[in-house]
Amino acid sequence: MIISDRMQNMQSSPIRKLIPYAQEAEKKGITVFRLNIGQPDIATPKAFLEAIRNYDNDVIAYAHSQGIPPMLESLVRYYKKFDIPLETEDLIVTTGGSEALIFAMMTIANPGDEVIIPEPFYANYNSFATLAGLTVKPVTLKAETGFHFPSVEEIEEKITDKTRAFIIANPSNPTGTVYTKEEVDMITDLAIKHDIMIIADEVYREFVYDGEKYVSFMHRDDALQNVILVDSISKRFSNCGARIGAIGSKNKDVMTNVMKLAQARLSVATLEQVGAAAIVDAPDYDEFMQEAYDEYKLRRDTVYNGLKNIKGVVAEQPKGAFYNVAKLPVDDAEKFIIWLLENFNIDNETILMAPAEGFYATPGLGKNEVRFSYCIKSEELERSMKILEKALEAYPGRTEVE
Amino acid sequence: MIISDRMQNMQSSPIRKLIPYAQEAEKKGITVFRLNIGQPDIATPKAFLEAIRNYDNDVIAYAHSQGIPPMLESLVRYYKKFDIPLETEDLIVTTGGSEALIFAMMTIANPGDEVIIPEPFYANYNSFATLAGLTVKPVTLKAETGFHFPSVEEIEEKITDKTRAFIIANPSNPTGTVYTKEEVDMITDLAIKHDIMIIADEVYREFVYDGEKYVSFMHRDDALQNVILVDSISKRFSNCGARIGAIGSKNKDVMTNVMKLAQARLSVATLEQVGAAAIVDAPDYDEFMQEAYDEYKLRRDTVYNGLKNIKGVVAEQPKGAFYNVAKLPVDDAEKFIIWLLENFNIDNETILMAPAEGFYATPGLGKNEVRFSYCIKSEELERSMKILEKALEAYPGRTEVE
Repeated sequence: MIISDRMQNMQSSPIRKLIPYAQEAEKKGITVFRLNIGQPDIATPKAFLEAIRNYDNDVIAYAHSQGIPPMLESLVRYYKKFDIPLETEDLIVTTGGSEALIFAMMTIANPGDEVIIPEPFYANYNSFATLAGLTVKPVTLKAETGFHFPSVEEIEEKITDKTRAFIIANPSNPTGTVYTKEEVDMITDLAIKHDIMIIADEVYREFVYDGEKYVSFMHRDDALQNVILVDSISKRFSNCGARIGAIGSKNKDVMTNVMKLAQARLSVATLEQVGAAAIVDAPDYDEFMQEAYDEYKLRRDTVYNGLKNIKGVVAEQPKGAFYNVAKLPVDDAEKFIIWLLENFNIDNETILMAPAEGFYATPGLGKNEVRFSYCIKSEELERSMKILEKALEAYPGRTEVE
Repeated sequence: MIISDRMQNMQSSPIRKLIPYAQEAEKKGITVFRLNIGQPDIATPKAFLEAIRNYDNDVIAYAHSQGIPPMLESLVRYYKKFDIPLETEDLIVTTGGSEALIFAMMTIANPGDEVIIPEPFYANYNSFATLAGLTVKPVTLKAETGFHFPSVEEIEEKITDKTRAFIIANPSNPTGTVYTKEEVDMITDLAIKHDIMIIADEVYREFVYDGEKYVSFMHRDDALQNVILVDSISKRFSNCGARIGAIGSKNKDVMTNVMKLAQARLSVATLEQVGAAAIVDAPDYDEFMQEAYDEYKLRRDTVYNGLKNIKGVVAEQPKGAFYNVAKLPVDDAEKFIIWLLENFNIDNETILMAPAEGFYATPGLGKNEVRFSYCIKSEELERSMKILEKALEAYPGRTEVE
C-alpha cells in the first residue's frame, strides 16, 4: 500500500502542533494562557441550545443537501444586514467554513491549477489546496506595512494562464488586517480583467474597529459572477463546535456544481442547523454582538498596547478579527515558544502562541513571527504580554529584528 | 473561470434525481411511497436527544479533531460487541460515513490510481473517487446470483499496478447481499497478496437475517494492516441527521495521515458527538436494536414476497441491510419510474424507486433494475408491491427479462 503524495505533502497544523508542550507544562502545575487558537471563550447565544432543546421530532433525519429552509432563510436575513445580495437559491449550508472552502476549490480548479493567496494566510488554505491538487502562489505581505497589499503590478505578475482564483480573508486571519475599499477594488478589477474567481472568506466581518468599514467582495455588482463567499458562524456566534458554515455565489454554474458535492455528502447535521437558524432572530442578538465586539476590541487594545512597549517587537494595531501577527526579536519563533513552555513562567503562568511560519507558503518566511489569538480575558492578556516581555529579555536566542 | 473536470464528471444522485417527479405527483394529491431513499423512519434512540438536552457548557467549542473521548470510547465498546479490535487510538470520528470514505480514498491513493468496487455499489463511492481523482474498476455482480462475487480469477484480473484498494460494503447497499466468510477471505487474501487496502464499509452490520453471520474484514488478524473501516451511526441508530461516522484502522501510517485531514477540517460537531456517545450505553439499547431488527426483517420479507409473485421480476431474498435490487420487465427503469409517478396510481397511491443504473460504473448496466429501500411501514410496502405489480401490467414499455 501507499500513502498518497497529497497526504505526505500536507503539513501539520501550526496552531495545534505545540499543544503537547503546553500539556507538559500544565502537568507541572503551570497555567498556560493559550494565545494560539481562535476558539472564542465568549458564551454562545442561548437561542442556539434552546432551539435544539425544543426540537421534538422522533427521527433525526437527513436534512436537505442544500440545508434546512429556516437556516437558509436566516442566512439571507443576516447577509442583508451587510448588503450581501445572496438569496436562498444562491446558498448551500456547509459543515463549517472548512467544507465551504473545500467545495469552492474542488469546483473551480483542476489539479495543477493555481490560486493566489496573500501570505501569511490561514494555514488550512494550504491543506485544502493540497487536497484539491492546487498550487498556492503567495503574495507576500509585511508586518511593517500592517500586512496590507503591495502594488497592483506585484500582484498581477503572479497571474498566469493557470490561475483560477484569489483566496482572500477579509478581515484577515492571521493578521487581523482589514483591507480598504481600494484594496478590495484592486483585487476585484484584476479578477474581472483576467476572468478568475475570488473566494472571499469574510467570517470576521463583525469585528472591524476604529470606524474602519468592512467592504465585502460581494458589494461590487459588476463582479458578482466572479465571487464565491465562504462563511461560518463559528467566530461571530462563538459557536465553533456547531460546524455550521455556508457557501454562496450568484454564479449559477458554480452553485449547480457545488450542489453535486453537497448531495454526495448527503447533508449537514440537522440539529446544528435548527440551533444556528434561531440565532439571528433572537431578541438579544444585537446585544450579544455588541458585547462580543466591545470585548474583542478591548482585548485587541490590550495586546497591542503590550506589544508596542516591548523592545524589538514589530507589530501594527490590527483593525479587525481577533488576531495579531508580530515579529519578535528571536532566532526562531517555534524554538522560542517551546523554550517558553519548558523554561519560563511568572508566578507559574506562561503563554502559548502559534509560530507564524506555518502561515506562509514561501519557505523561510515568518520564522521570527508569531500569531496571537485573543480568546482569553483581557486581564490574562495583560499578564501574557508581561510574560512575553520578560521572556524575550531572558531568552538565549534573542536577536534584534533587522 | 472554469468548472473543474472532476465536477463536470460527477454524476447527480440516482437516489434523489427523480424526487421532483414525486413532488409533482404529491401536488396532485397523490401519496408517494418513497422506496428510493435509505432514511429510516424508526425513532432515533431517546438517549441521543436527552444527552444533548443535558449539555450545559456555555461555549459550544471545537471538539478535538480526533473526536471527543466519550464518543471514541463508546465506539470501542460498540466494536467489541462485534469482535472488531479497534481501540480509541485507532479511531477518528468523522462527519458521517461520507467523510470517512473521502478521508480513506484521499489518503491511500494518488490521482490516476485505481480502486476495485463490486457493482452495483453505493453511488457516492463514485463521487468520492472522482473527488480524489481515482478510477473505479468495477467487478460486476448479477441479480441472478443474488449479487455474490464471481470467481477469484475474475476479480484478480482487475488488479493492476495502479490498484490501491478494494471498496466493499458488507452487508451491501444497494443489494442487501451479505458476503460469506469465503468471500471475505477471498478478498482479504487478494489484498494481502497484492499489498492493497480494503476500505470496508460495514454500516449495516446489525441487519443480517436468517442466521447468516456478519463477517468483518477486521476479523482476520493477519490482514489488519490492510483494512480501513468506514463507519456511520446513521442507519443502525436511525440517526442519519446526526452526521456521525468514524474511520478506523490498525495501520498507523494510514491513521497518522488521516489525522492531518481531520485537523485541517478542525472537528466534528460537538453536540452530535455528545448525543451519539450516549446511545450504546443506554439501558434500552438492546431493546431498540431488537425492535429495529425485527421491523426490517418483516419489511424485507414483505418486499420479497411481493416481488417473487410478480411475473417477469428477477429478485433474490437479500440477507442483510434494508435494500433489494430487482430486475424489472421494462425497457428502462428510469422511464418506468417517471411514468409511474406521472400516470399510475391505485386509490391515489403510487411509488418512487431508485433507478439502479446510477449504482453501476459500467455504462449500460442496471438499465432495467431498481433499488428498493424499505424505510416505510410493512402495510405500505405491501400496497407498494401491489402497485408495482399492476403498474408493470399497464406500462407501455413492458418487456420480458431475457
